[in-house]
Order: sequence, then C-alpha cells, then structure tokens
Amino acid sequence: MSVSFQEWVKNCQHRLELFLEERLPVDKTVPERLHDAMRYAVLGGGKRIRPLLAFAAGELSGADSSRVKIVAAAVELIHAYSLVHDDLPCMDDDVLRRGKPTCHIQYDEATALLVGDSLQSLAFQLMAEFPLTDSPNNQLEMIKQLAQASGSRGMAGGQAIDLASVGKSITLPELELMHIHKTGALIRVAVMLGAHCGDQLSSHDLSRLDHFAKCIGLAFQVVDDILDSEATTATLGKTAGKDAQQNKPTYVSILGVKHARELAVSLQQDAYKALSEIKSTQRLLQVTDFIIQRHF
Amino acid sequence: MSVSFQEWVKNCQHRLELFLEERLPVDKTVPERLHDAMRYAVLGGGKRIRPLLAFAAGELSGADSSRVKIVAAAVELIHAYSLVHDDLPCMDDDVLRRGKPTCHIQYDEATALLVGDSLQSLAFQLMAEFPLTDSPNNQLEMIKQLAQASGSRGMAGGQAIDLASVGKSITLPELELMHIHKTGALIRVAVMLGAHCGDQLSSHDLSRLDHFAKCIGLAFQVVDDILDSEATTATLGKTAGKDAQQNKPTYVSILGVKHARELAVSLQQDAYKALSEIKSTQRLLQVTDFIIQRHF
Repeated sequence: MSVSFQEWVKNCQHRLELFLEERLPVDKTVPERLHDAMRYAVLGGGKRIRPLLAFAAGELSGADSSRVKIVAAAVELIHAYSLVHDDLPCMDDDVLRRGKPTCHIQYDEATALLVGDSLQSLAFQLMAEFPLTDSPNNQLEMIKQLAQASGSRGMAGGQAIDLASVGKSITLPELELMHIHKTGALIRVAVMLGAHCGDQLSSHDLSRLDHFAKCIGLAFQVVDDILDSEATTATLGKTAGKDAQQNKPTYVSILGVKHARELAVSLQQDAYKALSEIKSTQRLLQVTDFIIQRHF
Repeated sequence: MSVSFQEWVKNCQHRLELFLEERLPVDKTVPERLHDAMRYAVLGGGKRIRPLLAFAAGELSGADSSRVKIVAAAVELIHAYSLVHDDLPCMDDDVLRRGKPTCHIQYDEATALLVGDSLQSLAFQLMAEFPLTDSPNNQLEMIKQLAQASGSRGMAGGQAIDLASVGKSITLPELELMHIHKTGALIRVAVMLGAHCGDQLSSHDLSRLDHFAKCIGLAFQVVDDILDSEATTATLGKTAGKDAQQNKPTYVSILGVKHARELAVSLQQDAYKALSEIKSTQRLLQVTDFIIQRHF
C-alpha cells in the first residue's frame, strides 16, 4: 500500500491494457477486419471497474498481481463482448459507447456478432493458458465460476430477463433479480477470481467477500441508473436517457432518484460492513468508494 | 468392438442426448424463454458428427467414454451456438435448420443471440466442471485448445473469412484456408480432445491423428458443398442451394461437382493413410466412411 489510490488505479489499468494489447491478435492477422474490430471493442476505453475489483481482491489474499492480471483481463473480455452484443440492433440498438461509435456502427453487424463470440472464447483461453493459482484443480474451479457467471444463469440470463421486462411494470425484487444476473454476476466473479489467485481464504472470509461483491454489484447498477437518468450523453460517453426512452424499468423509475440514492448508500454501508470483518481490505474499500461515488 | 457400427452410433448419440438434456437448464428455470430456446437449439437434432469423432478418437486412446461424453457435449454446444448465430439475419439469414424453423424465427433475434452466447459459456463450464483426464494440467490444456478452435483464429475467424469472401472470386487455397478455420478447427479439436481423455499418445500418433483430423475436416466441407448443390431442401433439412443463391464460393463453384467429388475421395484416402500408422483406429475409420459417404 505504498502508492496512492490514484496511482494504484492507473498502474492496474496500464498493466491490464498492455496485457490485452499483447493478447488480442494484431490486426494484420487473418481475418484482419475481425481482429481490428476486436481491438476496437476492447482497447483504450472504460474505467475497468471489474479488473480493479479483481486486483483489489487479489491484494486481500496476497495474490501475485501478474496472476490477477489474467483473470482481470478475462473478466474484462467477457464484459466487452457483452457490451458489443448488447449494443446490436436486435438488443439495445445503440450507436455510441465510451464516446465512440459502437462496434456494429464502426464495422458491421456480422463483424460485431463475431467480435463478441471471439472475445468470449479468448477470455476462456486466457483462463486456461496461464497459471492462476498453485493448484490446477482450483484453476478449473475458477474457469467454471467464470462460465457460470457469464452464461444463462448469470450475465446472459440477466440480459434475457432485461429484454422480457421492457415496457412491463415490474417490482423491486424482480428488478433486483435481473441485476443480480445482468451486472452482478460478473462483478461478483471478478472479486472472487481475484481473491482465488492468492492464498486460500477461510470460508468465513469467502462468504463475507461474496456478500460484499453482491452488494457492490447491485450498488453499481443503482448508480448506473441514476447516472443514466441525470447525465448528458457527452459526460456519459454513451447515449443518456436510453432507459426511459426504451421504457425500461430502472431503480430510478421504480424508486425515484431520491430513494435510489438512499439505496446506493445503504448497499455501500452493507458492503463496508462485510469487509470490516476481513483483513487487508483497504484497496477494496477504496475501489468501492470509487465505484459508488463516480459522479455524486 | 462388440457392437455393430450402427448400434455404436445410436449408443453414442443417445448418451450424448441424455447428458445434454440433463445439463441444459430446464425451461422452468428463470429466464424461461432463454432456456427453452437453448434446448430447442441443441436437443433432438443433427447427426452429432463431432461427438462421434470424439467418441471414436477416445476408443483409440483407451479413454473412459463417460469422460469423452463431456468433451463431445462441449464441442457440440460450440457447434450448436455457431449454427444459431450463423443463421441470424446479419449472417446467413436462414429460416430452416435441421428441418425446423431456425432459433431466431422460432423465438426472436435477441433471444437467438443470447442462446448462442449462453451455449458457448456452457461448453466451457462443462469442460471445467467434470474431470476429463487424470491430470488437471492436461485438462487446462484441453480447455485452451477448445477456446482456440472456437475463437478468432478458429471457427469464428472462419465465419469472418467466409463473410469477406461473399461475391468475390477466391482461389482454392483461399477457400481451403477459410474451411480449415470455419469447420475444420472444431472437427479437429473434437478428435484431439476425444483422444486426450485417454492414455497419452506418442507424439508420432498425435501428429498422425492431427493430420487425419485436418483431412476429415476438409473432406466434411467438400461433401457439404456437394450436398448443398445437389440435394433438395427436404432431404437436407436446411435451405438447399443457399451457397449459389448467396454467391458464396464453394468447392463445387470453384472445382465443379466432378472434381469436388475427386477431392473428397482423395482427402478420404489421405485420412485413411494417416490412420493406418496408428493402432486401434477401427471406429475412426468407420466414422470417416460415415461422414464422407453421407449421401453418395
């Protein structure tokens, strides 16, 4: 903990970017257009929230950060693929992401589809290619966890619940169920995989960490909804107000901004409480603040 | 080798089907529509060529068939996901597959997109969840191989090359490069993963097996092109003559039917020759005949 939080964030982001740069096939490799588009979709953008959580959770378990870097990259590739597919016309039909044209606008729909498919494969390739823990059996378990968090009972399932809810009146628990899948599952697995790269934690610590990760995953979404409802397209880097436009239920549409903010704070308190029962959590606390207080 | 080839095929297909049935989430699990569509896309159809190759290669290395079943299922899930995405309007835009409406016709495009994404995750989940060999390090290597065969340098990359070639005049080597990626990579990995479930093969045997798998992968595509040019939609179970309609280069369009048939036979001979240098290859020989002589 010798460096400031800001330096630490920059350092993590920089190391992740270099690694992704190196592992994504260069755009001179056949098929060139696909590889070019994969790099476009992944490199040079995003706050890398999930990787930061993985790095911070790795510090908690004394993990070698060069191992955590691999799981951070894998989780970020899954996240990046989901954004590319989510932006497609048959899904959210969005044209702007991270301040740039979305992948299917910059390239074409078919290429964007294959970009997402290929990024998912690459994520699992990285998880299997590099040693992540001292036990290959634990590494297999980590791959399984990432697959579960990504699939139909995790992130992709959350997208399906999201689609089914458009234009419908849903309850707060239903909205929560959607987000536990859609954004929560991947955030949660980022934390857990980061920790798994280091020393085995006690089952008490693992369970508190998992509770923390669940709270932070939901808090992240509540904050996202508030930002979407308040920010402008320019500050957000993606089309603002889309949720309301598409008649999507959000924490803001169900609770109103005031209560949504209260919920974010309460989830943050809950997350702090879970962490207070574990040692060496300072970086995780800082990342939590960073996530919750992004813009308010 | 006590049962006839036909019985063996039925037995493999049956065991695979039961396992997939069991591992695909039931359609009463949230999100119901997605799970229903996943089952629709995977169950009850197809000749299961790749699984048969995996089972046959497993016999060659003395593998426990209950382990081979897992890799067979994983490879088939990757294949099924690729068909669902390939049929989407932004790709081949097809309405018929295995004699049934394609996934996006039966459900909707967004669901079909998520079906493909989720099937890919499930494939890697299975590869990590069950023991496939006695060495977890070898199992990690197998997962890496499947990821490589699926991604931008394998199957998905082949789709991208395919897209780029529509309406263009390409050479035979270019067509071969496309198919080595598009269909060849997954067929090849099906063979190798099946073998890896058993005793470690000598590097000589592995290299001959790999050459066999490469030949059979190409032969499969040549036969597919011939079938597409000659068969009717009814016998094919998918829209016939699509390649010519979409102005796609095929072995038939480049070589003509006669020479395409000769190429299929020559690849088959080459595959036989590679196998003749390894022991216990009878099932693989039978599966080879089954693939090449599907309809002629």
